[in-house]
Amino acid sequence: MDAVELNFWFEFGSTYSYVSAARIGAAAARAGVPVVWEPFLLGPIFAEQGWDDSPFNVYPAKGRYMWRDMERLCSKYGIPFARPSRFPRSGVAAARVACFAGKTKEPWLPDFARAVFRANFADDREIGEADEVRSILDSLGLPGARIFDEAHAPANRQRLREQTRRASELGIFGAPSFVVGGELFWGNDRLEDALAWAGADQ
Amino acid sequence: MDAVELNFWFEFGSTYSYVSAARIGAAAARAGVPVVWEPFLLGPIFAEQGWDDSPFNVYPAKGRYMWRDMERLCSKYGIPFARPSRFPRSGVAAARVACFAGKTKEPWLPDFARAVFRANFADDREIGEADEVRSILDSLGLPGARIFDEAHAPANRQRLREQTRRASELGIFGAPSFVVGGELFWGNDRLEDALAWAGADQ
Repeated sequence: MDAVELNFWFEFGSTYSYVSAARIGAAAARAGVPVVWEPFLLGPIFAEQGWDDSPFNVYPAKGRYMWRDMERLCSKYGIPFARPSRFPRSGVAAARVACFAGKTKEPWLPDFARAVFRANFADDREIGEADEVRSILDSLGLPGARIFDEAHAPANRQRLREQTRRASELGIFGAPSFVVGGELFWGNDRLEDALAWAGADQ
Repeated sequence: MDAVELNFWFEFGSTYSYVSAARIGAAAARAGVPVVWEPFLLGPIFAEQGWDDSPFNVYPAKGRYMWRDMERLCSKYGIPFARPSRFPRSGVAAARVACFAGKTKEPWLPDFARAVFRANFADDREIGEADEVRSILDSLGLPGARIFDEAHAPANRQRLREQTRRASELGIFGAPSFVVGGELFWGNDRLEDALAWAGADQ
């Protein structure tokens, strides 16, 4: 029986989403599982839980731990990492572009997403700013200014809001999350389990 | 170079502590890492974070996810599991006994801890009640009534409070946590990383 697809829900401001974005391509290829990249925003999801900031800022002990954990994880996986000077950075502009790419099934979506994550978590760049997002698109050989404008049209802004609503309806409360059929898996640590679930005879 | 020891910080009311308690004996033996069992209470730690209940009750989406995740994890590891009818159950009485056993380096501490976790998360027993804790001790061939009384003497109650204060000083904010030298690892998912850290040439 064929593997079912895995929906990869990510947020550009999320540290552990970065780790999964860096790992998922090779891991899914080995497992023979097709991946659908699903950008969304954690802000509205966290607001439902009563937070107006990242829980890693709201809870300092958890935050201190997370930064050390990221150093160890990225070292283990060979992923470049430098703690950004601002956290969290807004992922809204980049998520609109990713959402626009997802809608028209652009093949550059994963490359774009990985480049944004790297800019944020390895190169300390201000991914929340329009110029940075356009420049990342340009660096991939894409027409950055045009794509950015299309991604910021009202219909596409609405599309991202609907993505985030869908995430909430799926029971998603953090990122990254993986959805396989009706099963939700939360956290970079669950990537292998989610791929195994997708690959198993359902 | 010899492996350094791993300190296993657990709370009897914690679902993921149960999973680690069931796994750590065999995993640590394979890695050649000595384990010190460190009971503590999450209540005072959660209170510092502003919660008067388990975060899995405070945040319902996270709670729904956790119960399904526990079913999958326990199935994967072959650990018996049944969602308890009360959650969380108080681990205070059992933690006092574990603390008492730890102080005198009683060899029955790991067996006692595993039996309490199983009673809570496989057999739906009221581990917060004195009779249940005494009966678990008796079932291990130990003098339950005597040990329970000694564990509830003022000096040992104070010992558990100090354990919990030590946990907080170590930066622990949840359970299970693993401490190896100065490194903190949080969550059942980090057991293998913590063992590797302990086994590596430090």
